[in-house]
Amino acid sequence: MSADAPGSGHGGPAASHDVVDLIRAKRDGAALPADAVAWLIDAYTHGRVADEQMSAYLMAVVWRGMASDELDHWTSAMIASGERLDLSGLTRPTVDKHSTGGVGDKVSLVLAPLVAACGAAVPQLSGRGLGHTGGTLDKMEAIPGWRADLDPDTMRAVLADVGAVICAAGPGLAPADRRLYALRDVTGTVESIPLIASSIMSKKIAEGTSALVLDVKVGTGAFMTSLADARELARTMVGLGTRAGVRTEALLTAMDTPLGRTAGNGPEVTEAVETLRGAGPPDLVEVTVALARVMLDIVGLSGGSGARPDPAEVLASGAAYDVWRAMVAAQGGDPDAPLPSAAFTRTVPAPADGYLSRLDARALGIAAWRLGAGRARKEDPVSAAAGLRWHATVGEQVQAGAPLIELYSDDEATFPRALAALADAVSVTDEPPAPTPLVLDHIR
Amino acid sequence: MSADAPGSGHGGPAASHDVVDLIRAKRDGAALPADAVAWLIDAYTHGRVADEQMSAYLMAVVWRGMASDELDHWTSAMIASGERLDLSGLTRPTVDKHSTGGVGDKVSLVLAPLVAACGAAVPQLSGRGLGHTGGTLDKMEAIPGWRADLDPDTMRAVLADVGAVICAAGPGLAPADRRLYALRDVTGTVESIPLIASSIMSKKIAEGTSALVLDVKVGTGAFMTSLADARELARTMVGLGTRAGVRTEALLTAMDTPLGRTAGNGPEVTEAVETLRGAGPPDLVEVTVALARVMLDIVGLSGGSGARPDPAEVLASGAAYDVWRAMVAAQGGDPDAPLPSAAFTRTVPAPADGYLSRLDARALGIAAWRLGAGRARKEDPVSAAAGLRWHATVGEQVQAGAPLIELYSDDEATFPRALAALADAVSVTDEPPAPTPLVLDHIR
Repeated sequence: MSADAPGSGHGGPAASHDVVDLIRAKRDGAALPADAVAWLIDAYTHGRVADEQMSAYLMAVVWRGMASDELDHWTSAMIASGERLDLSGLTRPTVDKHSTGGVGDKVSLVLAPLVAACGAAVPQLSGRGLGHTGGTLDKMEAIPGWRADLDPDTMRAVLADVGAVICAAGPGLAPADRRLYALRDVTGTVESIPLIASSIMSKKIAEGTSALVLDVKVGTGAFMTSLADARELARTMVGLGTRAGVRTEALLTAMDTPLGRTAGNGPEVTEAVETLRGAGPPDLVEVTVALARVMLDIVGLSGGSGARPDPAEVLASGAAYDVWRAMVAAQGGDPDAPLPSAAFTRTVPAPADGYLSRLDARALGIAAWRLGAGRARKEDPVSAAAGLRWHATVGEQVQAGAPLIELYSDDEATFPRALAALADAVSVTDEPPAPTPLVLDHIR
Repeated sequence: MSADAPGSGHGGPAASHDVVDLIRAKRDGAALPADAVAWLIDAYTHGRVADEQMSAYLMAVVWRGMASDELDHWTSAMIASGERLDLSGLTRPTVDKHSTGGVGDKVSLVLAPLVAACGAAVPQLSGRGLGHTGGTLDKMEAIPGWRADLDPDTMRAVLADVGAVICAAGPGLAPADRRLYALRDVTGTVESIPLIASSIMSKKIAEGTSALVLDVKVGTGAFMTSLADARELARTMVGLGTRAGVRTEALLTAMDTPLGRTAGNGPEVTEAVETLRGAGPPDLVEVTVALARVMLDIVGLSGGSGARPDPAEVLASGAAYDVWRAMVAAQGGDPDAPLPSAAFTRTVPAPADGYLSRLDARALGIAAWRLGAGRARKEDPVSAAAGLRWHATVGEQVQAGAPLIELYSDDEATFPRALAALADAVSVTDEPPAPTPLVLDHIR
């Protein structure tokens, strides 16, 4: 008899929970009860369950999924691993937005001040980017002097004074998620709807917001490339939030084409400011205003009596720009300081005369990332100046040889691989492409 | 954008192989090519792939399985992680047997000397037990003075002189399997046919035998409880061995009832010696002789000309017992020394008058294990004396209240949990149960 006996060494003296039994149960398709899930997350957070055991468990979750109840328990256990912010002292209703991440997705920078200007309080606790989609904090940190880390009291004070705050989720918020995410990243277990949903929602529920709107991106530049997967993720998160007492709705929005005209940290801040000053690109304005309407709706600050202004009008009025300036200043940033500019540039010309029919979000995201705007490992620095600006988007006319995409970098050596990513990023047709909607669905 | 971005950090600068890419490929159902499998096993063996990455990979294998080619590569890579014994200098043909493990399975102790007495050389490299099925080395170590560890030269010398050797597979044989098995044991990834098959076959191919017969046990006391799973495991191993140039066949044998009349290390040695002296229980003799016939067949030492004696006759003649004595003595054991006896005993009586219709192998295995015959962790010691002897097996008559099962232990405190394991182990019926075959199938 070799060592390949049944793992029945674990059928011996009963512990309250045996991690190998839990892994085997999940592997065999069981839904774990609340006490087992709570034990597992707590034991992992405290080092009593090893990384190699949790990664096997996570792969079993990628395989088997989680039942709805089980996912609630999992998310609750991640929240219980840390502190929970109390925002109940604010006079305004709180509502936050979360995006699953897209290329050129600077929506938060415009949306948080806009919704604050419309009367809600927006506690936008954000993360840094990994891979080809940028992080909101990376973008804000392109602003000289601006700092992401606020203690809870300061965060609440900014929220009360200004109405919006964009800051880092502190290490005390769902620390189990932090460890689990780092493990998932190196073990091929990122791509699981329940794990993605619980990772996002544990932090959002712990931050104390009373309402939440999710922007679930769908397309080549998004994490979810199919509408069906995006819808399932949205429904899973809306269910989780709602059952946890946070009014939660989701928009599915298109991400085959990057949003706006820029990708990269400083370039996106510049474009956000242009938008807050009333000169934003139509697609960015459309998605931002659609999200703002849902956010105001679910906290009762929209339509109805007709007394409330429409967010599109508030954006055009400049009121959101005033909130932006106050929000930046409250965190040490100088809203008038020039942003870092790149030492080197390159230009990609339009390949033909005609209409731009495709501008691939994923390709542009990878190019911006390779130029230095994103990081491969979470400890890597990012460049404030690196990125892209394109002169036309899908549906617009271009001329062969005229500049189409500008590349910015602090390091000339980054250009060849960035240009390689763009090699097949663009299509030009003789006829204009049929228009496609930006907002694809509303899950509530 | 939160941390829940695509794991596209791994789409960056190309390494020869990126472990996360390999995990994701297996997770998504791909079959890995030879170079990727070789890299993965080598990198894991040398610590460049972390335990948490390999355990996620292994869970993906439990989920997705392995293609036939891929399994060959995996097994070859495990063999390549260590040395390979050279048994080509022997004049006799080499043939080994491997059992997937059963309760009361002392077949190896009888079979190795029997097949040697029939003219083959039997290099029986064995393991220690884990869980409720005992290990062959644990049994042999009940013999005073006997040592399991032989260097390759001594092992070859014993094989040449005696014709059979039972010893430990050295640490240089398929060391990757050793690490992988320890990882699988704590991560719920033991139960996978390709992983089981490659674990067994990598060691058997590396030991240098030219032929191999597999005893794949099926039933409550076996690792495989269904005939279909056992057949798939047998076919997988036979294919692996054959493609690697080792003539390999398998018998599927029944393991709902334990073999013989004893379970436990010393008790099984006693019963093996009884069998070698011609007084063995019929079921043990039947399985042993059936395996011996296949072993002799595939190395061309049976039937045909009629000149070769039948193993049943050789067993009855005492010739195998002579080989046993020489084999034990060659490894420092005293074949005449009394075996350790247990300090404490208990008796379970037959519950009714009638025919024994069920004697549950798994229950008896767990009872023996709890008495001290087996180990829960690989570093635990085992007792030489602990175990069980039953006075009747399935199909035989019993009388209510007469002793049915004797329990032996060095520690009285072990009895309550051992007796609990036996609480529902036995059924008695008025009519004799229909006889069932011991050898269920022959896979070649």
